[in-house]
Amino acid sequence: MRLRIDLAYDGSDFRGWAAQPRLRTVQGELTSALTTVLRLPEGSLQVTCAGRTDAGVHARGQVAHVDVPPDGSETAAHQLGQLAVLTRRVNGVLARDVRVRRIVAAPPGFDARFAALWRRYAYRISDDPGRVDPLTRNHVLAWSRPLDVAAMDAAAGSLVGLHDFAAFCKQREGATTIRTLLDFGWSRDAEGLLVGHVRADAFCHSMVRALVGCMITVGEGRRPPEWAREVLAAGHRDPNVVVLPPHGLTLEEVAYPADSELAARVEQTSARRTAVIDEGGEG
Amino acid sequence: MRLRIDLAYDGSDFRGWAAQPRLRTVQGELTSALTTVLRLPEGSLQVTCAGRTDAGVHARGQVAHVDVPPDGSETAAHQLGQLAVLTRRVNGVLARDVRVRRIVAAPPGFDARFAALWRRYAYRISDDPGRVDPLTRNHVLAWSRPLDVAAMDAAAGSLVGLHDFAAFCKQREGATTIRTLLDFGWSRDAEGLLVGHVRADAFCHSMVRALVGCMITVGEGRRPPEWAREVLAAGHRDPNVVVLPPHGLTLEEVAYPADSELAARVEQTSARRTAVIDEGGEG
Repeated sequence: MRLRIDLAYDGSDFRGWAAQPRLRTVQGELTSALTTVLRLPEGSLQVTCAGRTDAGVHARGQVAHVDVPPDGSETAAHQLGQLAVLTRRVNGVLARDVRVRRIVAAPPGFDARFAALWRRYAYRISDDPGRVDPLTRNHVLAWSRPLDVAAMDAAAGSLVGLHDFAAFCKQREGATTIRTLLDFGWSRDAEGLLVGHVRADAFCHSMVRALVGCMITVGEGRRPPEWAREVLAAGHRDPNVVVLPPHGLTLEEVAYPADSELAARVEQTSARRTAVIDEGGEG
Repeated sequence: MRLRIDLAYDGSDFRGWAAQPRLRTVQGELTSALTTVLRLPEGSLQVTCAGRTDAGVHARGQVAHVDVPPDGSETAAHQLGQLAVLTRRVNGVLARDVRVRRIVAAPPGFDARFAALWRRYAYRISDDPGRVDPLTRNHVLAWSRPLDVAAMDAAAGSLVGLHDFAAFCKQREGATTIRTLLDFGWSRDAEGLLVGHVRADAFCHSMVRALVGCMITVGEGRRPPEWAREVLAAGHRDPNVVVLPPHGLTLEEVAYPADSELAARVEQTSARRTAVIDEGGEG
């Protein structure tokens, strides 16, 4: 039986999503909590997520799946019939910096990673030292100089579309850096924070943080908005583009097609997989 | 020379505002940072605030004042001429959970505590476990059952006005519990959080948290909105009114009259002082 798990976490005290020996990771904590509550033998669960966030990156809209052998334990068989209870129990075991919002039986063909249509991230910046908020310091980057939101928004918009984002990606042998940027824009929220929203079919490693680094240079007026396209066109990492710290970045949302389209989407994405190794990777 | 200091803090790791030996408090940390940066002898500064927040209570709009002897040190005399530099240096010494937003020369007659016209607090509650946000867990109370915002808003509105709030205050010998509640209302913000805003000339100790405790009982439907007035009229602590945890509470704003009215306001408030001992106290 496959479960879909929607979860949120404060990435501050995690070494990212992916389980690593002796390090605290989201995948490690979630796998351990599910294994404990379902009373399964250690090592019987493999949790897969939509966006493999880096160390320090947060998530409000992470989606994962896990296959649970219903005959793995009596407890498992029983709890799979009561997923609201399972959700409460898993949250009872997890620390407060990660919360499971919902566990449901996944529809046929669902795969948290390969069925995803797109991922949306937000990067938050406070550029007014007179309004800096200690209550949000763990997920908002404090910048000491004012930023020009219109220039950043223009630069961001110029990158939307199907491009080779090699200039903003860590190169990996055999992995393509071609992505479709569906949206990228900047605005101020009600509290005056600068929020960059970026949505794409997938991201390569550290891509969002490099994109935002480019935007900040434009926002400070050190380069014109047109510079973003020049960096993109150059096709290789530009030393003038800084990869910003992870703590301003949050995975906000992952979208999936209608249930009837899930299998086709997985097939389509998996076919690209040999090329797009970093499918679920994150900025 | 009197300085006005606007500051914000995450109260999680503070034992409240008021300095106490060997405990980490906001007053203690701020006094120590100012003393260090101004190179004054220890014990030469006394920082006074508008709202003496309890342990665990946060502030976005705290206001304080301090009198600095300009002849206290050469550094002090110099830095008082460069208050933007002083602000940066004090923030450089302070930990990241408390930030000074602004230091200015206080206008004549200014007193952070006695010149204040009113204080405004917000209490934030997340009542939907499916939307609980680990990123805001330090300043939003998680409630596991849905709350009726309209009922809470009606109950809150019924308490507005000049009343004896003894039913919601810790009694103190010789201290009046008469306060003017200027506003009290509940609404949902864009993220679906329940936010209670309460504004009064002053609050007595733990008053806001007792008021919110009463509202939650109404929000759960265990009592009708009219119950709030009954509790108020009874005039003594009702064991059915729970004092809620401090971490949902934030001091958002303190208001002062125009500079020309400051002295008159201080005189008016100080005259009441013998009666209203807890003037600056907090919910």
